[in-house]
Amino acid sequence: MSNKIWIVGLGPGLHDHMTPAAQDALKEAEVVVGYKTYIDLIKFFLIDKEVYASGMRKEIDRCKEVLEIANQGKSVALVSSGDAGVYGMAGIMLELVESEQADVDVIVIPGVSAANAAAATLGAPLMHDYCVISLSDLLTDWDIIKKRIACAGEGDFVVSLYNPRSKGRPNNIVEARDILLKYRSPQTPVGIVTNAKRENESMVITDLENMCEEEINMFSMVIIGNSKTFVTEDGTTMITPRGYKL
Amino acid sequence: MSNKIWIVGLGPGLHDHMTPAAQDALKEAEVVVGYKTYIDLIKFFLIDKEVYASGMRKEIDRCKEVLEIANQGKSVALVSSGDAGVYGMAGIMLELVESEQADVDVIVIPGVSAANAAAATLGAPLMHDYCVISLSDLLTDWDIIKKRIACAGEGDFVVSLYNPRSKGRPNNIVEARDILLKYRSPQTPVGIVTNAKRENESMVITDLENMCEEEINMFSMVIIGNSKTFVTEDGTTMITPRGYKL
Repeated sequence: MSNKIWIVGLGPGLHDHMTPAAQDALKEAEVVVGYKTYIDLIKFFLIDKEVYASGMRKEIDRCKEVLEIANQGKSVALVSSGDAGVYGMAGIMLELVESEQADVDVIVIPGVSAANAAAATLGAPLMHDYCVISLSDLLTDWDIIKKRIACAGEGDFVVSLYNPRSKGRPNNIVEARDILLKYRSPQTPVGIVTNAKRENESMVITDLENMCEEEINMFSMVIIGNSKTFVTEDGTTMITPRGYKL
Repeated sequence: MSNKIWIVGLGPGLHDHMTPAAQDALKEAEVVVGYKTYIDLIKFFLIDKEVYASGMRKEIDRCKEVLEIANQGKSVALVSSGDAGVYGMAGIMLELVESEQADVDVIVIPGVSAANAAAATLGAPLMHDYCVISLSDLLTDWDIIKKRIACAGEGDFVVSLYNPRSKGRPNNIVEARDILLKYRSPQTPVGIVTNAKRENESMVITDLENMCEEEINMFSMVIIGNSKTFVTEDGTTMITPRGYKL
């Protein structure tokens, strides 16, 4: 029998959005590995476990550590917030296993993604065709990202922006907004949720013209409506119609 | 205190991918309403409940029923498979509440979406920017859908196709494939997962040229890679690299 690696999507953060399958993997694994912020979110599950927490941008090291542990014959869970398959740890872990042709059994456990969590807080902005785009240009050329934003605008997709702003790239979100303004009205609804389904969740509903004046950070998800998206009269809920006639 | 409606994303189907928040809502609600296939998936939670199951394409009637029940002072859960906010019941329910200016408290509970569930089964195909598109033209003009597919191709997005084929529209998937072939190599990896994270799950990994020869139905999710997506040597796993250098 080969050694076991679970790649676990923890969901957005609060335990009541973490699936039983994710919880079971944490319970069953002998070792748990992850970015320290996420390890902190699941402390409750880690009593009596061997735990390795590491810092940001240590993704490759973390995967190498996981593989080493699995090769030693221990079962190991590598955790990721949201869904591990969306800008999470699933890809790089599977790439490493492939490049080493390692004899391990890898199981990816899906989770509630940050986009879905933020959307639920806002109402129902993702009810029609949508794009998920990360504004982080650490690993992707900014020109490719800009082109994708333009295509999303052209196609009238709802747009979910991951990693919308950090200290190192404060203006990507402004450029993204400016590109979308070529295709969409300045009054297009925009929802910003920070810490979606975590402690200290906050949300604001604004519009494309004014969105950059709001607090947006690396814990925020920005969801920009399509041409049909609207906000309820009381301003609390953002809805993209599917097309039903009431 | 106003009456309570939960809009509950059940996740893909198996209970171990249904969040505790979704389970709690089902337990707390006095009445549960949903499409009969999904009601069948959660029978276990419905002992001693008042349950209303209805057929396909009865979405508006179902929402009206929910609102009537809430107006009678009963708490009610409206269920949707996957994430209720992705082609699910969240939008139309919130639209109805808004149009009636109903005095109810609506809580949307996110779930693991079908796209995330299928991606986990395939490996990690959604690791980079992606689009979610429904090929159902019941409520959306086919021309709009085709334009979106073209924009997704142009932007080199990974593409997740919901409702890829049904008896009423057997050829939309063929047209979608033909549009993407204008932008992407015939060898682009394609993953097809049917009944993702449900009983009788099946998956196949093929390519853009040959995908339409596979069994695709209304329980399938089709995920088409971007220009960098690859399949592992053993053919079992589909990975879209994020851009890390191993």
